[in-house]
Amino acid sequence: MEAPTNITIKGILGLLTANTDGCKKLISLGMGDPTAYSCFRTTLSAQNAVLQALQSAKFNGYSPTVGLPQTRKAIAGYLSTDLPYTLQPDDVYITAGCTQAIETTLSILSRPGANILLPRPGFPIYGLCAAFRHLEPRYFDLLPQMQWEVDLKAVQDLADQNTVAMVVINPGNPCGNVYTYRHLQEIAETAKRLGIVVIADEVYGHLAFGADPFVAMGVFGSVAPVITLGSLSKRWLVPGWRLGWLVTSDPDGILKSPKFVERLKKYCDINGGPATFIQAAVPAIVGETQQVFFTKTINLLKQTSDICYWKIKEIDCISCPSKPQGSMAFMVKLNVSLLRDISDDIDFCFKLAKEESVILLPGAAVGLKNWLRITFAVDPSSLDEALQRVNSFCQRHSCN
Amino acid sequence: MEAPTNITIKGILGLLTANTDGCKKLISLGMGDPTAYSCFRTTLSAQNAVLQALQSAKFNGYSPTVGLPQTRKAIAGYLSTDLPYTLQPDDVYITAGCTQAIETTLSILSRPGANILLPRPGFPIYGLCAAFRHLEPRYFDLLPQMQWEVDLKAVQDLADQNTVAMVVINPGNPCGNVYTYRHLQEIAETAKRLGIVVIADEVYGHLAFGADPFVAMGVFGSVAPVITLGSLSKRWLVPGWRLGWLVTSDPDGILKSPKFVERLKKYCDINGGPATFIQAAVPAIVGETQQVFFTKTINLLKQTSDICYWKIKEIDCISCPSKPQGSMAFMVKLNVSLLRDISDDIDFCFKLAKEESVILLPGAAVGLKNWLRITFAVDPSSLDEALQRVNSFCQRHSCN
Repeated sequence: MEAPTNITIKGILGLLTANTDGCKKLISLGMGDPTAYSCFRTTLSAQNAVLQALQSAKFNGYSPTVGLPQTRKAIAGYLSTDLPYTLQPDDVYITAGCTQAIETTLSILSRPGANILLPRPGFPIYGLCAAFRHLEPRYFDLLPQMQWEVDLKAVQDLADQNTVAMVVINPGNPCGNVYTYRHLQEIAETAKRLGIVVIADEVYGHLAFGADPFVAMGVFGSVAPVITLGSLSKRWLVPGWRLGWLVTSDPDGILKSPKFVERLKKYCDINGGPATFIQAAVPAIVGETQQVFFTKTINLLKQTSDICYWKIKEIDCISCPSKPQGSMAFMVKLNVSLLRDISDDIDFCFKLAKEESVILLPGAAVGLKNWLRITFAVDPSSLDEALQRVNSFCQRHSCN
Repeated sequence: MEAPTNITIKGILGLLTANTDGCKKLISLGMGDPTAYSCFRTTLSAQNAVLQALQSAKFNGYSPTVGLPQTRKAIAGYLSTDLPYTLQPDDVYITAGCTQAIETTLSILSRPGANILLPRPGFPIYGLCAAFRHLEPRYFDLLPQMQWEVDLKAVQDLADQNTVAMVVINPGNPCGNVYTYRHLQEIAETAKRLGIVVIADEVYGHLAFGADPFVAMGVFGSVAPVITLGSLSKRWLVPGWRLGWLVTSDPDGILKSPKFVERLKKYCDINGGPATFIQAAVPAIVGETQQVFFTKTINLLKQTSDICYWKIKEIDCISCPSKPQGSMAFMVKLNVSLLRDISDDIDFCFKLAKEESVILLPGAAVGLKNWLRITFAVDPSSLDEALQRVNSFCQRHSCN
């Protein structure tokens, strides 16, 4: 009956918010949910597709638990454009957001004594899921001086015959990195040597605005089998729609063993899954969204990440190992030795929330003590104001 | 990596449908999803509430994983009208349909060596969830000659110190029973003696059209702690909206121990959950639906269940121990000794599907061999036609 002791992002952000005193307007750079800002509003065509599906009254009933056929087909087509092979509708399982795709993947891979390799820093839901499913998490480092690349030597050393998979989040949450083709290939080759599955969390897929383009991990699906996780949440700015997917990007069919597929299908039967009418809108959403909508989001994220990067440069006690290249957040390093009365990242965030009504996520919540995660999917003026307040706070608490 | 061997209703219905030859129009009396028929259409006010929430663009973001505050409050208020005490919003956890409420309940109650008492016949998702969560299922009989009441002596005999809960589905799926106040009280007293929780599956709550009114199990929450599961699916005829709930109906606060609540909240963090804008529509849906909509559904279900009952009476090899009193389906007994070339319920259903394009659910799928589950949430003329075909089929295969 014990709950796992893992920290959750929402849990700690809730505590931080409760610690603000209400004198200044609250600005949260804590969570990857941009929908609070009108500049990050989804496209009207996506909203209309859902409206029409609802109004048709054709989609009030159950869908197959693996997803509507037309939805699976649309996602297969959408993802295939990034791949050197074609995904089939049967490769796609529709889930209640990427969270349920994560939970499903870890549950079906779990077996007694198994372990899973997770990135540090990483997304805490993986550790929490692993704890609930009795899957031992083993953490490998992402290397801040190497654009947050995976420490592949550590992966090699951590793995044993009970390792079932490694998780790669790209574009990266919480680091804001975008991996190169070459690095993804090295990851796949490492997974092949170890005989493990790559779980590719691409919930931020295509949200890349730096020098390197987004490359889908599934490109290397014939090197090692890949389970690709994703959702409409980030690219379409609708995390509340809870429409995600789990896809076997595995042209050699290693994951298509009858046992694996049967287990996955049965697991979908106990899942719940997303609303049928939202599923029914997916073909129109992925087929008809104009490029201009995506470009606008990318340009805005590039602008706000630049604001963050340069504003942070002005703050003595915070440094940034590399410019964000993608996703909606990045990690910065806190030098507490330059601060008079701040003991660590958690102390920093609680005092910042109280004094400045600005919420940042302590690095401890994503596995990296004395770092901070900053979300830049925020409208530029709020971001500017928030970072100004962070600067004032740091100056006020400076040793000098 | 093995999948549990449990039969699922959707699995077997899929096989039966694939076995039809397409000569006659397919009529399925197999699944509890009435939305295929225009007479079972949800109320326009519910649809409009969802439309408005979507169009407002205020609910595209994440909700708290336990549910939006206004949604929890609305469900607490809705359910409290059936209870001698008042539920609080914090008692309510919003889930992706009742399926996710079941999965969550079984997962949080699971611990090494634990067992759970399940009704036979019952809803197979419980057995499947228990298998995935390593919770040993132990089956007690529902008694067909006693209006499908729980065999409380069997419950007493099956329980031991590792029993965590018993499941009560009322109004009953698959039996169509509605339990009396007295019987629910006996169940609660039995649970109290055994020191176990009652999981009250009330997904068909208020869908009662016989002599006895629907009584919420939570009425006896001070006798034994009750976890009430429900959803909009059946009463509002929108199973595809995936909006359900898990509620601690427990005025003495036994389930409000910090450990239990913490575990439940963390479990919600890995769940996925329903779309935020559908959650946002719930206060209007439960607050503003006109009684005339509910009355229409009840009258229609009474009419179609009557058609079923009397049409089945005309068929020699099928008998019905009691008239359906609620829900959308009931169980009838197959006497294979009166049939020439039918070996059992599964054989019956496959041949019926092939020859008559009518789908019934074999009792084996719900734990009762040589019975059949018939769904009567079907428009009256289709139901009439389907049962006529069942009658012809039985006559054609009769020994006489």
